[in-house]
Amino acid sequence: MSLALDPAAQDLLFREARTANTFTDEPVTDEQVQAIYDLVKYGPTAFNQSPLRIVLVRSPEARERLVGHMAEGNRAKTAAAPLVAILAADNEFHEELPRLLPHFPQAKDVFFASREVREPSARLNGAMQAAYFIIGVRAAGLAAGPMNGFDHAAVQKDFLDEDHTPLMVVNIGRPGPDAWLGRSPRLDAGEVVTTV
Amino acid sequence: MSLALDPAAQDLLFREARTANTFTDEPVTDEQVQAIYDLVKYGPTAFNQSPLRIVLVRSPEARERLVGHMAEGNRAKTAAAPLVAILAADNEFHEELPRLLPHFPQAKDVFFASREVREPSARLNGAMQAAYFIIGVRAAGLAAGPMNGFDHAAVQKDFLDEDHTPLMVVNIGRPGPDAWLGRSPRLDAGEVVTTV
Repeated sequence: MSLALDPAAQDLLFREARTANTFTDEPVTDEQVQAIYDLVKYGPTAFNQSPLRIVLVRSPEARERLVGHMAEGNRAKTAAAPLVAILAADNEFHEELPRLLPHFPQAKDVFFASREVREPSARLNGAMQAAYFIIGVRAAGLAAGPMNGFDHAAVQKDFLDEDHTPLMVVNIGRPGPDAWLGRSPRLDAGEVVTTV
Repeated sequence: MSLALDPAAQDLLFREARTANTFTDEPVTDEQVQAIYDLVKYGPTAFNQSPLRIVLVRSPEARERLVGHMAEGNRAKTAAAPLVAILAADNEFHEELPRLLPHFPQAKDVFFASREVREPSARLNGAMQAAYFIIGVRAAGLAAGPMNGFDHAAVQKDFLDEDHTPLMVVNIGRPGPDAWLGRSPRLDAGEVVTTV
C-alpha cells in the first residue's frame, strides 16, 4: 500500500523528521514563520475556530525570562535555539467566529457563549493546530523541539494573559551536532487500531 | 519565501485539502489505515507517550449505534461515509512508557503516576496525534471529516471504557459531489503571531 504523498515529503514531515535538542546558529526569519503559518492555517479545526496564537520570543531579555520558566532539562536548548515560540490557545476565540465561519455566524452564541465550553475546545483545537505548526516547521526544512516541561502559570503570567493558555514551547532551527538520540519505538498499528 | 516541501504536497495536505461532508462509495481498506498510521505514528508527542487509540466502526450494527450518538447535523454523513473512526485518548498510556521511552523508562513513575496528570496530557497529545492522523488521511489521497458534535459520554460508554476518552469522530473516504462549502477565511499571520 503506497500513499499519494511523495516519499520524499513523507520523509521530510514524518519518517526522517525528528525532535531536535541542538541547533545551528542559522537564524529563523519572520518570513519563514509567515510561510509556515500561511501553509498550516488551512488545517481543520472545529467550526474553524482557529484558537492557536504564537508568541515569538526574540529579544534577549524575553528569552532569558522564558528560560527561567523552563524545566531544568529544557533550559540550555531553549537558551540556544535560533527561535523559540510559545504556542497558546485563545480562550476568547469566539469573538472571531462570525468572521471565520460566515455560513454559520451564530455559532459564536449558540455553541460558545460559555467560557467553560470554550476553554477545553480551545485547548483541543489549539493542540491540533500546534501539531499542524510542527508539521509546517518541518515543511520549511527546519526542525522543531516542542516542550511541555515549563512553569505554565509563570509563562502565562509573564507572556500571555488570563484569556490565553500556554500549550507548549517550541524551539525552532536547523539541527545541530548530536541533535537527537536514537528513534524511540512506536506502538504497532495492531496495538492502536481496533475494529468493531 | 518558499518552503522545502514540494508545492504538490503542500496542496495535498493543506492548501487543496478540505473537510469532506459527502463521499463516494469507494471503500477505505484496512491496508490504507495501516499505511496512514505507519506514517503518522512518527509525529512527536511529549515523552513519546503516543496516547491515540483508533476504533474503526465497520459493522452495520456498530455504525448504526454510533450514528445514534451523533449530533443531528452529523448523522447523515456519518451513516454514509465509507469508513468512520473514533479517535480516543488512552488515559493509561503510562503503562507503555517504559517501552516507548527506553532512555528514560522511569518517566512512567516520575511524571505520570497520577491519573490527574495523565488525563490532560493524553488529551493534549492525543489531539496532536489526531491532527497527524488527519494529515495522514490526506497523505493517502483521501478526505477526512472530523467531528466533535456527538454525545461524548455515550460514545465512551458504548465503544470505549473509562480509561479511554473520545476526542473526535472522523469520516474518511474520497470526496463525493458537493463535498464542501467555499473555503472559510483564516486569520492572518499578523493576527496570530506576535513578537516579544
